[in-house]
Amino acid sequence: MLKEYRHPVPFSLEAGGQLAELTIAYHTFGSLNVDRSNVVWVCHALTANSDVADWWPHTVEKDCFLDPGKWFVVCANIIGSPYGTTSPLSADPATGEPYYGDFPLVSIRDIVRAHRLLASHLEIDRIHVLVGSSVGGFQALEWLAQEPERFDKSVLLATDAYASPWTIAIDETQRMAIESDSTYGERRPDAGMAGLAAARAIGLLTYRGGSGYNITQREKDGFNPLEDVHRPCTYQRYQGEKLCNRFNAYSYMSILNSFDTHDVGRGRGGIAEALSKVKAETVVIGLSTDIIFSPQEMKALCAMIPGAQYFEIDSEFGHDGFLVEHVQLNNILTPFMNR
Amino acid sequence: MLKEYRHPVPFSLEAGGQLAELTIAYHTFGSLNVDRSNVVWVCHALTANSDVADWWPHTVEKDCFLDPGKWFVVCANIIGSPYGTTSPLSADPATGEPYYGDFPLVSIRDIVRAHRLLASHLEIDRIHVLVGSSVGGFQALEWLAQEPERFDKSVLLATDAYASPWTIAIDETQRMAIESDSTYGERRPDAGMAGLAAARAIGLLTYRGGSGYNITQREKDGFNPLEDVHRPCTYQRYQGEKLCNRFNAYSYMSILNSFDTHDVGRGRGGIAEALSKVKAETVVIGLSTDIIFSPQEMKALCAMIPGAQYFEIDSEFGHDGFLVEHVQLNNILTPFMNR
Repeated sequence: MLKEYRHPVPFSLEAGGQLAELTIAYHTFGSLNVDRSNVVWVCHALTANSDVADWWPHTVEKDCFLDPGKWFVVCANIIGSPYGTTSPLSADPATGEPYYGDFPLVSIRDIVRAHRLLASHLEIDRIHVLVGSSVGGFQALEWLAQEPERFDKSVLLATDAYASPWTIAIDETQRMAIESDSTYGERRPDAGMAGLAAARAIGLLTYRGGSGYNITQREKDGFNPLEDVHRPCTYQRYQGEKLCNRFNAYSYMSILNSFDTHDVGRGRGGIAEALSKVKAETVVIGLSTDIIFSPQEMKALCAMIPGAQYFEIDSEFGHDGFLVEHVQLNNILTPFMNR
Repeated sequence: MLKEYRHPVPFSLEAGGQLAELTIAYHTFGSLNVDRSNVVWVCHALTANSDVADWWPHTVEKDCFLDPGKWFVVCANIIGSPYGTTSPLSADPATGEPYYGDFPLVSIRDIVRAHRLLASHLEIDRIHVLVGSSVGGFQALEWLAQEPERFDKSVLLATDAYASPWTIAIDETQRMAIESDSTYGERRPDAGMAGLAAARAIGLLTYRGGSGYNITQREKDGFNPLEDVHRPCTYQRYQGEKLCNRFNAYSYMSILNSFDTHDVGRGRGGIAEALSKVKAETVVIGLSTDIIFSPQEMKALCAMIPGAQYFEIDSEFGHDGFLVEHVQLNNILTPFMNR
């Protein structure tokens, strides 16, 4: 069930300015045990929300690694996202109107500080396991750097210690697509929708990669490219439209901008220095065909975290493998969580 | 020097309709020898043109594999491209106005048939070596299938026997970006330019891939993501703008549509059957980090061509490696051309 925490005072932002009102939407699964030692905090990625059981199939289930019979699983929606936390479509108290394009820059560090406020509100001190996949891993790594003593364990899946030039180029290309839609900038929730659809299609290319498309989007026998519409064309348009039905261009832009601020080493003597302070027992998981966060980069990340152990999921579905390969994922993580 | 061949009669198109007038722009380098046995035909990719010496550095040079002292190198601009061959910006004789969005669908097979007309015009019968990289390779493979007896040798670089679901998804995403610019469709040469810039940025992501960006677009020390503009952002915008200054959205769209018709096996009993008829001594070259045409796919392509030999260029620059790694390229191809 979606719950809300309304922070009682304005929330200052790292890049300057503040959010006069901050609401954080979140889900919990399972029950907090008496000594409050069974908290698992999941940080969500990109266009997901706080309902982990919805977007991460076969994880929040009995005998899976987020088994709600064992763990008290918390997931909070990130600032900027349209799933209940303060976002560009929230009313700016100064004007009574939605922020739209005036929503301020929110850093990954801000998002983590906001979720720390929620943890305080929930009277959670110690977090047993911190889990982050993709941009959720950006938050997890940042949180590990902010409070290295707070966590017993951490799981970092298909992510990185900073937004690499490559990931930033992907984000910028999506921004270009949104901005090429001249309705973006108009003060209405459905501004920039054609651009958003194109941005989503760009994202999908990078999430799935070549093998993902070549397996799932193969044409049927007898296909005629001179007359018929290619299956991957239909797929890209459908996925773009699907996001437009559940998201908005302002939120998408806000979140992309947040991601690009990620650098766990900034002001901390660099990435290696920052990661050397991590105390949590950590598992790093890469995906064999991930073109956003390559296995090579995941291994390099792992090598910087004291005692961290690297696992690789064999998948043909690229970065999306973390959502698809639940059998391998549970095989790696269930024993790690339980031991 | 850019030359032009004007075909004297209308040119029928595979998907129906015709081009009432067909002009083919082309370049030649070096001299045709007396027995006309030194022809090297180069098929160009995407946004390139017929001036191979311009877009393929360190190839049309003494002792390089396209040495103009040895070879008579021909390259023809493809239909749809704005570099001199009939394109959406050419006047439609029926109206006296440019075609723009009314330009008909031109298949890869049409493009090859057009270049065969140019070869006839140049009184070239036998082609000693046919060279195609990327979408140039689409044309080369198609030509090998249309006239397997015509070539002594062929070079296929970072390409495929068909437009895979993955490459079509990339193209469709670029079309979505162009169409999200609502000026696309207006009957003027600069319609859809913001969309074209975004499409180019998408293309670049796939040409360079992660390692390419992470090597060349690394931030300088002291970079502050809360205040400074990321280098890869500047790069993506600059590259988008650069293409807008030399191309147009209608040509880009026309060419993408052409690429998606590519399937060397169509109507020929499938790809394996079509390729089994290739007579040319063939070299297939993959690039170690190419995410468009993976080394795995290049090896599979090679395995279907009788006697073909596979080479791999080790590069951090993805698909663009074929333009960058001229030392390795010449080391592989110069002996092959000369033996």
